[in-house]
Amino acid sequence: MLKERLYVIKIGGNIIDDEQRLGAFLASYASLNGKKILIHGGGKLATQLATTLQIPQQMVDGRRITDAETLRVVTMVYAGYINKNIVASLQQLGSNAIGLCGADANLIRAQKRVHETIDFGFVGDVQQVNDAFLQTLLQQNISVVIAPITHNGEGQLLNTNADTIAQEIATAMACYYQVSLIYSFEKTGVLLDVNDESSVIPQLTPSLYQQYRKEEKIFAGMIPKLDNAFRAIASGVHNVTIGKAEELGKLVSGQTGTTLTHD
Amino acid sequence: MLKERLYVIKIGGNIIDDEQRLGAFLASYASLNGKKILIHGGGKLATQLATTLQIPQQMVDGRRITDAETLRVVTMVYAGYINKNIVASLQQLGSNAIGLCGADANLIRAQKRVHETIDFGFVGDVQQVNDAFLQTLLQQNISVVIAPITHNGEGQLLNTNADTIAQEIATAMACYYQVSLIYSFEKTGVLLDVNDESSVIPQLTPSLYQQYRKEEKIFAGMIPKLDNAFRAIASGVHNVTIGKAEELGKLVSGQTGTTLTHD
Repeated sequence: MLKERLYVIKIGGNIIDDEQRLGAFLASYASLNGKKILIHGGGKLATQLATTLQIPQQMVDGRRITDAETLRVVTMVYAGYINKNIVASLQQLGSNAIGLCGADANLIRAQKRVHETIDFGFVGDVQQVNDAFLQTLLQQNISVVIAPITHNGEGQLLNTNADTIAQEIATAMACYYQVSLIYSFEKTGVLLDVNDESSVIPQLTPSLYQQYRKEEKIFAGMIPKLDNAFRAIASGVHNVTIGKAEELGKLVSGQTGTTLTHD
Repeated sequence: MLKERLYVIKIGGNIIDDEQRLGAFLASYASLNGKKILIHGGGKLATQLATTLQIPQQMVDGRRITDAETLRVVTMVYAGYINKNIVASLQQLGSNAIGLCGADANLIRAQKRVHETIDFGFVGDVQQVNDAFLQTLLQQNISVVIAPITHNGEGQLLNTNADTIAQEIATAMACYYQVSLIYSFEKTGVLLDVNDESSVIPQLTPSLYQQYRKEEKIFAGMIPKLDNAFRAIASGVHNVTIGKAEELGKLVSGQTGTTLTHD
């Protein structure tokens, strides 16, 4: 039997920081027919609030070290301010949205990251997704909006990478749906020339990706995202599309952006 | 047919501010058998954050005027920090909790308060509760934790009194359940002498309440809470109990606190 389509859409930080672009994105998202899950990042709002509260922010390898005070800030900003405002906007747009973090209904269980040399603080690596509960919401045509905060089951909230959450959710839901995972951000897709927005690679397969990587044609910053994306495909996700948030309608139909598929 | 019991429990601000008392309360709450919904207030955390962020706070008749900046603060603190930490604690205690605000799944629709002389700002008065959705969660034995933020269906979040939300939720669920509404706070119950914690009135009916009011035996601060409570009873709620959060187990069984019933 053909599985129903499910869109798992990650919306990046730069869009969230821009009220107008976020509004345009949410309008496209709301008008998307069918089952859908939205995962949002945090953007600069958390950093701004931490700065105002004089909580020093430490970044290691592009990742935020999350001490107790910073965890409090990201919990407030991601799971509170951003999540609830997105939900209220989607409700206005006629999309019956519900905003959750990973602790809610045990949606995403994670473990505190253990690293040989770096103490990342309250950062979580995803262990398990409560796919059965997500499915009960989707069956009611509720669109789920997920903030990148998880928990360890022992009372501890954990700051967790939103790209990874999107991948884990997409993979977990592949048993019920034909899942399209969409990473929407400020670029038009995976570029052969990072300075040329028209150099989008329209299609990538695992073998083509390996070839481009050998030829060093893939921008280093995209590699973790693409590695995650191909892992999702290897685990049953139907396709992954990467492209501009403002073109969501075209992205989901594969008319723009970069689409990753099986070989 | 006898309806199943549902506990709708409001936990007051002073308990939320005190980590140890909150922990003790949540342990009692988690061990409570049966269907349950928790509504939490905000305590002093929102005021503290607003002060740190230098957002002036204006109170009129004991109610917070909610300008745009203050709404942002209470959304972060109530729907983010407090709500998600309560949920993570309950998950640790083995209670499958989900944290929601009124915008989530259109749970609580409200309208911006209109007042002849005072502009309360982004304050909402409850119009409608999505009881059908709450029922789908309760049927899955999920315990719902509600932050006192609602929405107007037009994209606007609204700060809303948690006591009122508890009453509206209790009333809306009375069609499915025999609802016990519990207001748990720092006092042992409704007192005849506000300075004597042992002067608790164990039982109140509408007629006894009117008599005590005529005799001016009810502390003025309790009157709005009791008016709300009796309205809930008039609208189908089975009973309302008011008492100490730390004695939740005894409260639900009517061994302590003040229990309000029909005449």
